[in-house]
Amino acid sequence: MDRRAVLGPNRYGKAAIRLMKVDRETERHVLHDLTVSVALWGDMDAVHLHGDNAPVLPTDTQKNTVYAFAREHGVGSAEQFAALLAAHFVTSQPAVRGARVDVDLHGWRRLADHSFARTGPEVRTASVTVDEDGTRTVSGVNDLILLSSTGSEFKGFVVDPYTTLAETDDRILCTSVDARWRHLGDQSDWEASYATVMDALTSAFADTYSRSLQETLFAMGERVVATCHGVGEVRLSLPNRHHVLVDLEPFGLDNPGEVFHVADRPYGLIEGTVLAPGVEPDPGEW
Amino acid sequence: MDRRAVLGPNRYGKAAIRLMKVDRETERHVLHDLTVSVALWGDMDAVHLHGDNAPVLPTDTQKNTVYAFAREHGVGSAEQFAALLAAHFVTSQPAVRGARVDVDLHGWRRLADHSFARTGPEVRTASVTVDEDGTRTVSGVNDLILLSSTGSEFKGFVVDPYTTLAETDDRILCTSVDARWRHLGDQSDWEASYATVMDALTSAFADTYSRSLQETLFAMGERVVATCHGVGEVRLSLPNRHHVLVDLEPFGLDNPGEVFHVADRPYGLIEGTVLAPGVEPDPGEW
Amino acid sequence: MDRRAVLGPNRYGKAAIRLMKVDRETERHVLHDLTVSVALWGDMDAVHLHGDNAPVLPTDTQKNTVYAFAREHGVGSAEQFAALLAAHFVTSQPAVRGARVDVDLHGWRRLADHSFARTGPEVRTASVTVDEDGTRTVSGVNDLILLSSTGSEFKGFVVDPYTTLAETDDRILCTSVDARWRHLGDQSDWEASYATVMDALTSAFADTYSRSLQETLFAMGERVVATCHGVGEVRLSLPNRHHVLVDLEPFGLDNPGEVFHVADRPYGLIEGTVLAPGVEPDPGEW
Amino acid sequence: MDRRAVLGPNRYGKAAIRLMKVDRETERHVLHDLTVSVALWGDMDAVHLHGDNAPVLPTDTQKNTVYAFAREHGVGSAEQFAALLAAHFVTSQPAVRGARVDVDLHGWRRLADHSFARTGPEVRTASVTVDEDGTRTVSGVNDLILLSSTGSEFKGFVVDPYTTLAETDDRILCTSVDARWRHLGDQSDWEASYATVMDALTSAFADTYSRSLQETLFAMGERVVATCHGVGEVRLSLPNRHHVLVDLEPFGLDNPGEVFHVADRPYGLIEGTVLAPGVEPDPGEW
Repeated sequence: MDRRAVLGPNRYGKAAIRLMKVDRETERHVLHDLTVSVALWGDMDAVHLHGDNAPVLPTDTQKNTVYAFAREHGVGSAEQFAALLAAHFVTSQPAVRGARVDVDLHGWRRLADHSFARTGPEVRTASVTVDEDGTRTVSGVNDLILLSSTGSEFKGFVVDPYTTLAETDDRILCTSVDARWRHLGDQSDWEASYATVMDALTSAFADTYSRSLQETLFAMGERVVATCHGVGEVRLSLPNRHHVLVDLEPFGLDNPGEVFHVADRPYGLIEGTVLAPGVEPDPGEW
Repeated sequence: MDRRAVLGPNRYGKAAIRLMKVDRETERHVLHDLTVSVALWGDMDAVHLHGDNAPVLPTDTQKNTVYAFAREHGVGSAEQFAALLAAHFVTSQPAVRGARVDVDLHGWRRLADHSFARTGPEVRTASVTVDEDGTRTVSGVNDLILLSSTGSEFKGFVVDPYTTLAETDDRILCTSVDARWRHLGDQSDWEASYATVMDALTSAFADTYSRSLQETLFAMGERVVATCHGVGEVRLSLPNRHHVLVDLEPFGLDNPGEVFHVADRPYGLIEGTVLAPGVEPDPGEW
Repeated sequence: MDRRAVLGPNRYGKAAIRLMKVDRETERHVLHDLTVSVALWGDMDAVHLHGDNAPVLPTDTQKNTVYAFAREHGVGSAEQFAALLAAHFVTSQPAVRGARVDVDLHGWRRLADHSFARTGPEVRTASVTVDEDGTRTVSGVNDLILLSSTGSEFKGFVVDPYTTLAETDDRILCTSVDARWRHLGDQSDWEASYATVMDALTSAFADTYSRSLQETLFAMGERVVATCHGVGEVRLSLPNRHHVLVDLEPFGLDNPGEVFHVADRPYGLIEGTVLAPGVEPDPGEW
Repeated sequence: MDRRAVLGPNRYGKAAIRLMKVDRETERHVLHDLTVSVALWGDMDAVHLHGDNAPVLPTDTQKNTVYAFAREHGVGSAEQFAALLAAHFVTSQPAVRGARVDVDLHGWRRLADHSFARTGPEVRTASVTVDEDGTRTVSGVNDLILLSSTGSEFKGFVVDPYTTLAETDDRILCTSVDARWRHLGDQSDWEASYATVMDALTSAFADTYSRSLQETLFAMGERVVATCHGVGEVRLSLPNRHHVLVDLEPFGLDNPGEVFHVADRPYGLIEGTVLAPGVEPDPGEW
């Protein structure tokens, strides 16, 4: 058959596998509540062009593997579990040249030996890619919502014919942090590493007098690479959740930074990468 | 004009007013992060039938009132703020015979004097209705997700031609609690009252050996009315978030209560009301 | 055991059962894409108070029944399918005194004999309740989003100290219709009945010069009961999706009803019931 | 100050600007319902490192510009509107070296001259990037949900120790298409071009006997580049919305491809790029 097009990059996998692993070795149970996604790529031309499924490891099998590995190997850290899975797919399947496994780790707070309450809204993430270039491990957090009720200004910006925004010396700064940090190698303790990064992100946010969300972003990234051993690069995506001071003058009231409308859309979106000194950026998708 | 229909019950208002109130009396700021909804009803026939807006307090004005009241009176407790607003609408507007104000209170955890991180997923609620019958105050919580990794069985149920479920001696019990509790009068301390109910809900969930989610529901409601002074009636809506033990036998593995698929849909939904002894149920909407 | 509380009204069931039924009698397949929820109530005290599951038809069995009935009886109209299921649960289970079955019917547009594209956003609903009072059938629609770009004013309303809204002669009127209509008995053709109501709702919205969303609400309800044989009562919940004219004067531009900001929150919420002449309102939940 | 980190790639802008533009030249109004996002990048080191906002065009101004341009220039096609905006930011701001403008275009169906009903769920998208490399225009669609009730098999795949999936000769194939197609230059008629691509996607889906979703993906992409003049590259992201045949044997029923459980999670995710012959892939983000 005469093809009228060429296949470019492609991948496939099972997304959003929901897995609860309970460690029951002692009376004091431990939960691992995960959402796992697998993506595989390799020599898949025949699949797309001729409907030849010989190289395809079905996504259903990928799902089974995730559940079975949780039993066989335990979950341990999200990064370890993702690495084990990614390596398995690449080494066991001749047609698979690369694998990426993404894990969301949902938090629970202990109420008793075997009772728990969900925490949030932040969700810890881990992503491991294994391919011909080796193994790349990225940790992260989504939806970590931070707010400072003062200590934030915004002024000195460009004024053009479409400007109406007034300068401000004091505003609420609020953002929902999505962060990804790339490790230069394995961490000896992934739980401790995560805690250190979370502390760096929140303390830098709280400590920094902010002249813009960009300045806060860099301060957060800098704190991470300066204090978290083995982290080489941080990507931060910071929506600016605008809190708009309500004009109460029509009602004979002042409003000295007390009453704000919380806006949904539109929102500012500040994105940036921060690197440890001497580390080369990794420009790919992660 | 000859009407071919009759107007029945109706109400209107502004929903989802997002409000952040910062108390700045001291260096240690305090946040009140609210979503407020107002509903008003009364003599609104002319509005519907003849387009005569003379009795209409616009929903935009309702929104303004919410922001202005936050500055004039502060927020204090969500229940107090809702009561103040509801009474205002009924007493200030001749055409308004009843008002309901609903508040969602979003949680924040302190990082520093004026820095905070959002907590959740649970959201505290307060609802106050003022009408010719007086004032009714209902507090609540949404999305309080609780899980027990053991101590739950389900057996002895009806078997009919459509039954395939096996009995189980040990399962994960997980639910996302939506609760509303009706106060018999004002509480002296709404914050303390909320904390007491939350403790009752979570401790009853954790303590109860569960033979069904219904039994757990009653135990939770009973604990609330038994320990929370002034609470007369509790409504609980408990989705059963099924955790399904994965069959690992095809892979030569056992699975002694360790690896579960977390299902989204369908889910069981258990709903029930629990009353303090001697309290008459309030069958209306709340 | 000495109970410290009393059980009030309660019910339980399986929610959000996702079902696709394909009619394959001819080459031209027909889809029925449903989300079904079941709620049962009756003599369930022992379940809540003593963990005695003898009267419990498990929600898993309810789910099985839904799938099996789709095969045994076909789906036909959503109302018929719901009625069949509700009657089955009440008549086959001694402990069940009442059942409510809710169906969402998702729309598909035909591309070919056995290929389809989803339509929306509106979703058709059907709800049938069977109990000691007989059978009640309610049809409905969710998320039917309608907009008029002119022919809507809002003026003559109450002005109080919190008013800032200006009167307007010409605005965008946009709402996302959630409607429920109660049938006085069985319809001979449920598909035709639904089409008639949808036409009544949309044509009344389009035809009515609107002095308020309340006036539009009544016009829509009146059109339904006046033109749809056998419909006795309509409940309408109409969020007012505010489209705010943008002030372009700072940029030297006029804005004669052309450029609007589409707001998310807060929104007005107008709710009302319209009755056919002589029909008694049914005040319960539906 | 001694920096302990290096700033990498960064950008910022206003996201999710909701805009309704009504063309009122004639009695028969025309709607353009858009969600617009802007991202800008350039020489922003001083902003991040020193809190110097001199190069910053505030995101609030970007929003104003979007509204003003809708009035000044009209919206026309989403691609034209995005291109106008992107070029404006790059040419008017010395510090801005690149701009990307993304538009979601929400569909409405006409009811009357100035009344409309929303359509969906699919949303048309347009994205224009202007930087030192010139202008790149990408069109797209999100959430185009397609289903074939037969004409799909899946067999001949890898079997490994974690395989439990059975081969099938006949299954439901359902996917929610997210597609992006890159234009090699300007189209003479963006509306016609979009219609042509939509027809190619849906007709290829409907026509193709599918041995895997990968084969269907390639057929869809091939149809697009073969029939849509000026489209050089297509990216398709196809979640496999599993419809699982329900086992009705326990109830004494067969199930010849009629009753399916519609699963939410996990889902397969098939992603791939298809190129017109002779076109070089553009590996960047789009």
